[in-house]
Amino acid sequence: MQLTVLPLLADRMDEKFDVFEVFLKTLEKNETKLEDGDVIVISTKYISNSQGRIVDIENIQISKEGLDVSKKYQLKPEIAEVVIRESDKIFGGIAGFVITSSDNIMAPNAGIDKSNAKKGKVILYPDNPYLVAEQLRRKIFLKMLIHVGVILVDSRLMPARIGTSGVAIACAGIEPVLDMRSKKDLDGNPLKVTFQAVVDNLATIANHKMGEGAESKPFAIVRNSGATLTDRKISSFEMAIDPDQCVYVRGLSNPPKNQ
Amino acid sequence: MQLTVLPLLADRMDEKFDVFEVFLKTLEKNETKLEDGDVIVISTKYISNSQGRIVDIENIQISKEGLDVSKKYQLKPEIAEVVIRESDKIFGGIAGFVITSSDNIMAPNAGIDKSNAKKGKVILYPDNPYLVAEQLRRKIFLKMLIHVGVILVDSRLMPARIGTSGVAIACAGIEPVLDMRSKKDLDGNPLKVTFQAVVDNLATIANHKMGEGAESKPFAIVRNSGATLTDRKISSFEMAIDPDQCVYVRGLSNPPKNQ
Repeated sequence: MQLTVLPLLADRMDEKFDVFEVFLKTLEKNETKLEDGDVIVISTKYISNSQGRIVDIENIQISKEGLDVSKKYQLKPEIAEVVIRESDKIFGGIAGFVITSSDNIMAPNAGIDKSNAKKGKVILYPDNPYLVAEQLRRKIFLKMLIHVGVILVDSRLMPARIGTSGVAIACAGIEPVLDMRSKKDLDGNPLKVTFQAVVDNLATIANHKMGEGAESKPFAIVRNSGATLTDRKISSFEMAIDPDQCVYVRGLSNPPKNQ
Repeated sequence: MQLTVLPLLADRMDEKFDVFEVFLKTLEKNETKLEDGDVIVISTKYISNSQGRIVDIENIQISKEGLDVSKKYQLKPEIAEVVIRESDKIFGGIAGFVITSSDNIMAPNAGIDKSNAKKGKVILYPDNPYLVAEQLRRKIFLKMLIHVGVILVDSRLMPARIGTSGVAIACAGIEPVLDMRSKKDLDGNPLKVTFQAVVDNLATIANHKMGEGAESKPFAIVRNSGATLTDRKISSFEMAIDPDQCVYVRGLSNPPKNQ
């Protein structure tokens, strides 16, 4: 079955707004109808904007810890301060770029973003992204009587690669990971790789078509994804590995001798 | 424009074979025609099989270095030996899993795979993957007079995430990375994120639909990807960041004080 990805042009919104209402309008403007089983991918920036999650960094009080992080990683003190407030843990970093984790999402600079924000302001990650996704899914069901999956997407970098892919910051109504442990390969051997990152993979291709710039395509519909829809509540623990178990986080700090 | 991904069922091949010939047969069997601008994504395992890149690990002589790596990362000595021979550098690892780099591709265990191989054997990464992709692209042009992109895909893990996505091991005929440095955001600010990992993103969604198990869908066609096709020769340096410049490799080994 052919998978399709359809990005949707939407209005630029400057004040807080209702994402569900704007999504309905956007479907109409794009002359598109949702179908049962569709997966709706939405930019976290758009969700953050809808929540007014924008900080005026010029008025921020800087703590001792903020100054330390600012110096060590050559970030503006105001940015370092916001990064600390928004993250549970800082793993490390390079100049201008700190690797943090918050609500089980590993992200550069706690996901805060200066692009697509007015001067002197930064956009933070959404509040309660799983709740946002779940509410949207329910409203769509009540209005249209169809089951859909919802994914909130941000861009991310990959180890040793140039350019951004996508990552699911939250989801609702869709099984986030496909467990293939019971499946066999072509020779009947157990598979080496046993899980498929379903929502991250759908997030990646949707994000790719949504673009990053002035196009304003904050929504995309992924059709015939093959993903399993569900009514159960999804938690952030289902997609995230504890960094202590992560092959990159642990493996990269465990080099062989003589290197 | 709607992007579509169409995976193609193909015959299981046990001996060396001509990928181009098998691809033509596969198109026919799937009643599919290529279109100008299509991107063809092919599993590296299938390419490796076509080249006979299969090693009988039981007959391998184990070096001192192989034994060291085997002990440190709890790999079978034979596997450790093949990993060393296939990789330029070992960055580190955890039990059973070594992070290596070879030809600018960071991969677990140098990309060698026990699944989808007969007992006692492992499949290695393809020889000359860029040449393979380029030859396939040219043969398609000469036969059908259309321009296509070709991507060879493998599965990979993401930092702090459960499950696999895709990574382009090589490509031909397609610009691997979209440079957005000249573009602006919605407010006219320069973009924070300036490159898009085009071939990795297309590889990811194709790989997702191709499956990992007994389905044998080694090819997928991505249509209306929006990617820019090209006649120039692509090099592995265009998609890969030197690990010394990588935010994960360097950042994860550079933690803040007091942690």
